[in-house]
Amino acid sequence: MESLDSQVAFLLEADRLKTVLRQSPLTDRSRRENSAEHSWHLALMAVVLAGHAPPGADLGRVMAMVVLHDLVEIDAGDLSAYAPEADQARQQQAERAAADRLFPMLPPPQAASLRALWDEFEERATVEAKFARALDRLQPMLINMVTGGGTWMTGGLTAGQVLAKVALIEDGSPSLGAYARDMVETAVKRGILAP
Amino acid sequence: MESLDSQVAFLLEADRLKTVLRQSPLTDRSRRENSAEHSWHLALMAVVLAGHAPPGADLGRVMAMVVLHDLVEIDAGDLSAYAPEADQARQQQAERAAADRLFPMLPPPQAASLRALWDEFEERATVEAKFARALDRLQPMLINMVTGGGTWMTGGLTAGQVLAKVALIEDGSPSLGAYARDMVETAVKRGILAP
Repeated sequence: MESLDSQVAFLLEADRLKTVLRQSPLTDRSRRENSAEHSWHLALMAVVLAGHAPPGADLGRVMAMVVLHDLVEIDAGDLSAYAPEADQARQQQAERAAADRLFPMLPPPQAASLRALWDEFEERATVEAKFARALDRLQPMLINMVTGGGTWMTGGLTAGQVLAKVALIEDGSPSLGAYARDMVETAVKRGILAP
Repeated sequence: MESLDSQVAFLLEADRLKTVLRQSPLTDRSRRENSAEHSWHLALMAVVLAGHAPPGADLGRVMAMVVLHDLVEIDAGDLSAYAPEADQARQQQAERAAADRLFPMLPPPQAASLRALWDEFEERATVEAKFARALDRLQPMLINMVTGGGTWMTGGLTAGQVLAKVALIEDGSPSLGAYARDMVETAVKRGILAP
């Protein structure tokens, strides 16, 4: 029961992810999205878009990864994927420090295995990680399409900048990558993304 | 690509779950929890508490179930587990009508398989469903313990009423059930749950 106590402490600490705000709006534009509900959306995408995962990908591992991947934002906060490189480097360091603090709250064997899963997502080393990362990139694009450009407009981004990130979606799922590429083209035509 | 269009439409409709409020507060009591972030919390619990699942339970199926289980609240809203029976019956009907509307947004074979997964959760027919339902009952109890009684206090509940629901946790996981039973006892001692 001692290990259950530490697991519960970890799960209650995780609750704080519900208060970490992202740049993306909700589809109804009533407020900004938080990282916990974003993670849920990715897990739902893993279920619904399972047919677009690489052959042999273990969907349970994909879901575990997307559910865990943003926990480090409890300490590090959320940073736009389009932030300057120096900010990205600082963010990466802060996220690693957060992982060093959070996962050891769990019983040792589990702390190691879930930390390894988090590292795997970060390193995009496996088909599961590649697919999980593709979903993480695709989700805000879907929201941008139905919110008049969303973070593309608020961030003043161009199609070229967005397409550079689409490569990462293609790497995790060629069909979702092609879909994302089409979205960028449509968004430019509609005037909700700068050419 | 036609089926991908309908999957994306479903995923964007699902975004509305982020605006459905539950009775439970966040652990920092800053606001009420929404059903999307609650579903994420359950998926994280499935990962962390996997060792407490019934032997042979498929954790990927458990995660898919908890991620889907509350989607019907987009139409039906959230109702307390302690609401009067007549309200529960009305809620059940509204949730079934919502499932009838939402799942058919997906391509037919997937609509049928995800609807079956939702039905399985509702009927608690399998070890996966029993474990998923146990997590769904346990999560608000954990929050109540660290928010001065949370919905136990705001709902004016007694230990007897809560223990009646703990039976459902025991059915999905004897060890989590025993943990929940201890929590009720502790909560009564601390005066955050009426005897």
